[in-house]
Amino acid sequence: MKNVKLTIQYDGTGFSGWQKQPNGRTVQEEIEKSLSTLLKKEVKINGSGRTDAGVHALGQVANFREDFTIPIERIPRALNGILPEDISILSAEDMDMDFHARYSTKGKKYVYKIYNSKIRNPILRNYSYWVSENLDVDKINKAAQFFIGTYDFRSFMASGSSIKDTVRTIYSVDVSIDKNMIIIETSGNGFLYNMVRIMTGTLVEVGKGKINPTHIPRIIKEGKREGAGHTAPPQGLYLAKVNYY
Amino acid sequence: MKNVKLTIQYDGTGFSGWQKQPNGRTVQEEIEKSLSTLLKKEVKINGSGRTDAGVHALGQVANFREDFTIPIERIPRALNGILPEDISILSAEDMDMDFHARYSTKGKKYVYKIYNSKIRNPILRNYSYWVSENLDVDKINKAAQFFIGTYDFRSFMASGSSIKDTVRTIYSVDVSIDKNMIIIETSGNGFLYNMVRIMTGTLVEVGKGKINPTHIPRIIKEGKREGAGHTAPPQGLYLAKVNYY
Repeated sequence: MKNVKLTIQYDGTGFSGWQKQPNGRTVQEEIEKSLSTLLKKEVKINGSGRTDAGVHALGQVANFREDFTIPIERIPRALNGILPEDISILSAEDMDMDFHARYSTKGKKYVYKIYNSKIRNPILRNYSYWVSENLDVDKINKAAQFFIGTYDFRSFMASGSSIKDTVRTIYSVDVSIDKNMIIIETSGNGFLYNMVRIMTGTLVEVGKGKINPTHIPRIIKEGKREGAGHTAPPQGLYLAKVNYY
Repeated sequence: MKNVKLTIQYDGTGFSGWQKQPNGRTVQEEIEKSLSTLLKKEVKINGSGRTDAGVHALGQVANFREDFTIPIERIPRALNGILPEDISILSAEDMDMDFHARYSTKGKKYVYKIYNSKIRNPILRNYSYWVSENLDVDKINKAAQFFIGTYDFRSFMASGSSIKDTVRTIYSVDVSIDKNMIIIETSGNGFLYNMVRIMTGTLVEVGKGKINPTHIPRIIKEGKREGAGHTAPPQGLYLAKVNYY
């Protein structure tokens, strides 16, 4: 029996998200189908977590435990030959039996891309959030720093989410700009449902001058979803990296 | 009567190219349909030239001559509200009556993107040419400089093309690298059918060590399509700019 860690990239545009479901094309199902073809047996994989429809991954991680004879280092190329073009396996690694893509996570890093320009860019439409009003990047950066630390982030969780422990630690939020693209990189020990998208929507409202950067601590403290900004759309979000113990 | 110059971006992925045709979705037809809706009359546009299926544009140009009352500066936003998301009008300018998007061109600039990595990138698959073998960028750059000048470029024209005058002037070929992406920017007074894609395919073979950089002048001189390299695929090509007198 082997325990294999897969590192995976995908273009979320054509998917109903990561997790298998009765209707809609999902990343998990495509990988399970291809792995089952390759290993000639039914294979189930554990993802590090879900991504929503339209959300991309630069370094999603999944694992599976199976007996098979193909050398592990050949799995990426063999699997990429079967998988559809919008998924790619970057690497396959032999792990200890206790490794689990979800339960062994130490933290994650997400990237969010905002295309800030008066006119929309058709080439970037599925890969960024187009904001036509001019955004003040200095204000966004100032506000972003207030997210760093250990807080109860319930204000930044999709309403209706049933999670009880809403305390998370954000290690860093780096805001940079490349031509018209504002790039927000966020690392933390874990993220609530829609947390990065609500943080980003809030930062966009800061950039428009609707929320003062110094109000972020109060929004966190009050713990009300209405206090935070809108949920930024999925196509600007990338699961960049999953870290493990 | 007004003569309007439109500057246009599009994602070529979902199109059978620029030029209207009986079957297949085209950029020209989408713009003509939207303009006809906006101006409440049938409008025909002249493009600066065709682009093939899958080829993108950052700055395609077209013009149309019509009588209408809407202020020209309002056309981009109004048209973008009607157009599908994979086309965007960057600007609309009032021109002299003799301006013609095709016949008034002084030159064009194309960008070609090569993604050079062992493993394919699903997010970039429609926006670059994936080459898995390691390419020598210094050799590519050296070879590219031999294209600069006025030559008969018939070796770099799709076979079967009926154009008689195959002499063109290349002003510059700039090769740069950004992480795994090799970017080739080519400016010239005009381009034969598939010329940039055949130049790029030839440069890729140079980068793989199959063609010596110093052989480029001989490939040009011999005037045989077989002497040049393969035709690089359409999805890496971007019509970046059209220059006018």
